[in-house]
Amino acid sequence: MQQAGFNPACFYMQIKMTQNFSAKNITVIGNGGWGTALAILLYNKGNKIGLWGHDKSYTDYLNEKRENTKYLKGIIIPPDIAITSEITATLMDTQFILSATPTPYLRSVLLKFKEVFVNKTPIISITKGIENETLMRPSEIIRDVLGDPPVSLLLGPSHAEEVAHGLPTTIVASSNDLSLAQTVQELFTTDRFRVYTNTDIIGVEIGAALKNVIAIAAGICDGLSLGDTTKAALITRGLAEISRLGTAMGAKKITFSGLSGLGDLITTCISPYGRNRWVGEQIGKGKMLEEILRDMKQIAEGVWTTKSVIELSKKYRIEMPITHEIYSVLFSGKKPLEALNNLMLRTPKSEIEEIY
Amino acid sequence: MQQAGFNPACFYMQIKMTQNFSAKNITVIGNGGWGTALAILLYNKGNKIGLWGHDKSYTDYLNEKRENTKYLKGIIIPPDIAITSEITATLMDTQFILSATPTPYLRSVLLKFKEVFVNKTPIISITKGIENETLMRPSEIIRDVLGDPPVSLLLGPSHAEEVAHGLPTTIVASSNDLSLAQTVQELFTTDRFRVYTNTDIIGVEIGAALKNVIAIAAGICDGLSLGDTTKAALITRGLAEISRLGTAMGAKKITFSGLSGLGDLITTCISPYGRNRWVGEQIGKGKMLEEILRDMKQIAEGVWTTKSVIELSKKYRIEMPITHEIYSVLFSGKKPLEALNNLMLRTPKSEIEEIY
Repeated sequence: MQQAGFNPACFYMQIKMTQNFSAKNITVIGNGGWGTALAILLYNKGNKIGLWGHDKSYTDYLNEKRENTKYLKGIIIPPDIAITSEITATLMDTQFILSATPTPYLRSVLLKFKEVFVNKTPIISITKGIENETLMRPSEIIRDVLGDPPVSLLLGPSHAEEVAHGLPTTIVASSNDLSLAQTVQELFTTDRFRVYTNTDIIGVEIGAALKNVIAIAAGICDGLSLGDTTKAALITRGLAEISRLGTAMGAKKITFSGLSGLGDLITTCISPYGRNRWVGEQIGKGKMLEEILRDMKQIAEGVWTTKSVIELSKKYRIEMPITHEIYSVLFSGKKPLEALNNLMLRTPKSEIEEIY
Repeated sequence: MQQAGFNPACFYMQIKMTQNFSAKNITVIGNGGWGTALAILLYNKGNKIGLWGHDKSYTDYLNEKRENTKYLKGIIIPPDIAITSEITATLMDTQFILSATPTPYLRSVLLKFKEVFVNKTPIISITKGIENETLMRPSEIIRDVLGDPPVSLLLGPSHAEEVAHGLPTTIVASSNDLSLAQTVQELFTTDRFRVYTNTDIIGVEIGAALKNVIAIAAGICDGLSLGDTTKAALITRGLAEISRLGTAMGAKKITFSGLSGLGDLITTCISPYGRNRWVGEQIGKGKMLEEILRDMKQIAEGVWTTKSVIELSKKYRIEMPITHEIYSVLFSGKKPLEALNNLMLRTPKSEIEEIY
C-alpha cells in the first residue's frame, strides 16, 4: 500500500461506512467550485440535490455538459442533480439550504430567494468574507436578509478540487445551536470528509475571512522570492493579528488555534490552489491588481475582505500591521517590497510584546 | 524594485545599519551548515571567530577550500575565520561560545571542552532535540556537562542556506536571564536577521525539538500525495500536541504561538530544505528508514527526538497521537498509510474536545 504512485482517491478504501443517513432535500445556492463539490458529496451520500446558479446560460451549459468546466474541471456532475437558475417553488420542499455565494454577491442573491424562503429552513453557510460597508459576516447577512433562520457554518481548510478528488479533509460545523452543528456534522461526514463541531461562530467566521488577507501577504512573499522562513513568520504574526481582532469581537481565542483558524490559514498560504495567495504572488512579481483580477475566473475574496478588515481594526482599535500594509499595496499603490520591509524591519524587541 | 528576477540578497539594501557593536571573540563549536552560516554572520558584523569541527580531515579541507561543500555549498568562508579541530587554549579568550552540535553528539563534544572551559563564558545553544535516555534538552545537557554557565538559546524558523544568502530571518533569543537574551539579540541582529527576546526557555526548546517529529508526519503526507489540507490539519494538531506536552513541562502556552513554536513548525513542514520533512517524504514513498539515513550527509534530528518524546509523553501522561504513530512507522514497521488512517479516522466529535 505504501508504494510510489499511490492513488489518493483510494485512501480509506478499507474503512467501511458505518453511519446511516436518511435522505434529505437540499438546495445549493451558488454553482462555484466549492458549491459544486459539496453538492456532489451530498448527492453521493444519497440526498436529493438542487444546484442553483444566477447565470442561466451557464446553468444551461452545466445541464448539458454535466461538468463545471469553469470552476471544477474534470469532475462529472451526476445527472440526478437538478441544475437551475430559476427561483422556483422547489425551495418549499428544501430541508437544508447550502449558501455558497461569495460575499460581494451574497446579499443580492439572498434577496432573490427572500420571497420564496420558508422561514425555519436551516441555512449552512460556506462563504468566507466580511461585507464591505456593513462589515457583516456572512451569517449576519443571512439573518439580515432572511429574518432569523437557523444558521450553521461549514468552514475550515478545504479545497473544492481536493474534496472532489476524494482527498481527506477535516472541517468545522459551527453554530450557536450545538444540535444544529451536530446535524450538519452528520449530514456531511464521510470516510474522507471529517466534520468537527464548534459553537464559536464569530471565531470560525473571522478566521475563515481574515486568512485570505494574510494569504495575499504570503503570496507577495512568494512573488518576491523571500523564502519560507519569512513566509512562516508572516503566517505566525498573521494568526496573532487575526486572533487579536477576533477576540475583541467576542470570539474565543482557542478557536484560532484550531482547524478553522490556523488550519485554514496554513492551507491557504501554502496551497497552489489558493486564489488569494496567487493574487499576492502576481503582485509580488510586479503585476497590477486590476490586470490580475480582470484575468481571473473566480473571485479573490481577500481583496475585498481587506477593505472591511481595515474598518474593523479602526472600530475595535486593534493594531493589524500586516492587513494595513496589504491594504496600502492593493489600494494605495505601495510597492510590495516596501510593505514587506515595513513589516520585517521594526526595531527588535521582546517577542511577546511584539506579537501579542 | 518589484520586477520579476528580484535578487533577494539585495532585500533591505536601502536600509542602513544603525547599530554599533564592539567586536567579540566567539568560538563556534560545530561546523555544520547552521554553525557555519552563523559564524559568517558574526564575522561580517566585525567579530573575531573560531570555528571548531571534530573531524581534522574535514577542518583541514575547509581551511584550504574555504567552502563548506558538505553542509553549506556555494558560500565562501572568509579567510580570517580560524578553522580548527584542536581543543586549544584559545577557548580561554572566548567571550561567547556558540554550541552548534546535533543532540546525539552534544554531550560527547562538550566533554572534550570541559577541561579548557572557563566557567562563566556564556553559551549560546542552537541545537534542536531531546537527548535519548536522559530526556534532557540541549541547555540541560550543557549545564550537566559544563557546570552552570550562563546559557541563551537562539532558535526559531531559519535555514542555514537562506541566512547565508541574505534572505530575511526572524528568530528568538531565549534565556532565564533577560539581559543575556538581550546581549545575544544585539550580538546577532543585522538588517536581515531579526532577533526577538523571550524568557521561556522550556517552551522555546520544546517547540524547536518537537517540530521535527511533526515535520516527519508532514513529509509522509507529501510522500503519499495526500494534499495540503491534510498537511495543514497535521500541523494544526501537531502544534496542539507539542503545546500540551510543553505546558505540562512548565512552558508558557503563548510561546508555542510564536516564532519558535508555530513559526518554526510551519517552516520545517513546508520548506524544501527541511531534512526531517524530507525523511518523512521518502518514507511515504515507501523507502526504508535505514536506507534513507544511510544516504544522508546531515543528521535528521526528528528521528531520534521521536524516541525521547514518546518517553516524555509517558512521563507526563500526555496524549500525543501524531508522535505515537510516527514512532510506530519509524521503529515498529507500521505502514505510513495505516498510520495516517489512524490519525484521520477517529470518530468525529467536538473540535475543542478533540484537539485540546
